[in-house]
Amino acid sequence: MSDKGLIMIGWAALDVVYGYQDCDNSLTHTLSQIKKISSFEKSEVQESTAMKQDIQLNFEKCQGLIPVIAQDAETGQVLMLAYMNEIAWQKTIETGKVHYWSRSRNKLWLKGETSGHVQEVREILVDCDLDTVVIKVKQLGGAACHKGYRSCFYRKVQDGELQICDELIFDPKEIYGK
Amino acid sequence: MSDKGLIMIGWAALDVVYGYQDCDNSLTHTLSQIKKISSFEKSEVQESTAMKQDIQLNFEKCQGLIPVIAQDAETGQVLMLAYMNEIAWQKTIETGKVHYWSRSRNKLWLKGETSGHVQEVREILVDCDLDTVVIKVKQLGGAACHKGYRSCFYRKVQDGELQICDELIFDPKEIYGK
Repeated sequence: MSDKGLIMIGWAALDVVYGYQDCDNSLTHTLSQIKKISSFEKSEVQESTAMKQDIQLNFEKCQGLIPVIAQDAETGQVLMLAYMNEIAWQKTIETGKVHYWSRSRNKLWLKGETSGHVQEVREILVDCDLDTVVIKVKQLGGAACHKGYRSCFYRKVQDGELQICDELIFDPKEIYGK
Repeated sequence: MSDKGLIMIGWAALDVVYGYQDCDNSLTHTLSQIKKISSFEKSEVQESTAMKQDIQLNFEKCQGLIPVIAQDAETGQVLMLAYMNEIAWQKTIETGKVHYWSRSRNKLWLKGETSGHVQEVREILVDCDLDTVVIKVKQLGGAACHKGYRSCFYRKVQDGELQICDELIFDPKEIYGK
């Protein structure tokens, strides 16, 4: 990793180790397949990774953070926006589960760590300025919002007020106990 | 407007004056209709607005800015992410055309002011924390990205590299002369 807030990630390794899915949603490798990789094959992967570390994100614009839009991979509904620092970005890649940086708690945050409503990575899109990311996800539990709705954007502006226009999936009291 | 970075907007007036469309995409009023509103009707609108100024956004978390996700109202494709300050937010409401605050140029930015690729507001969604907005838009010209692609998120991560996966709509040299 450079000292200028840029991060270089070995995506090739991610593709192999976590069964990352491409645009066509075809699973190229599974974890069980990976466990069978021989040491020879592993060294090939490492070489490939070293060759392909050419994706650079710019974390400098917003105090070490980039905004990340989580979008339902099937329906296209925007589920939430949160932030990643370099650590969250790396953890997302390493685990195939979306991690954010919680600004309110000032700590790394595995989405779903309390509720179990993990976001599994399906596709990652990067913007023209390399400072914003869309992650298409499979939202486990069917809800991204801590208030129990499918999306954090569960209200629309209508008749001068905010009107609920999304489906309530769970009762926050049952999930979070509050 | 309060002194705590909260903004109260008369959405009722927006609905009437700019033909704002609801979830069902049904146009309730057109600008030409509005021009026929009598002074009596105008005073009714003002009273209604005063009654309904109850949508508050929190601009404090990110130095006076909120992130705004522009999403194609028809396809659901995420087109871009940019920021609004209170002025941009107000201008968007006043005009029915999306305005952002350009962080690089440090100025108010009517999206499409150079290219003509204006974003017309179709629906506005607000998140659970009142600090992020999704605006569903009709993207004039068919492209949101200054590089000529439909979306700023025109690249996906594949095989360790960024691969273009979106449609090129225009040649930036022709539009911006560079």
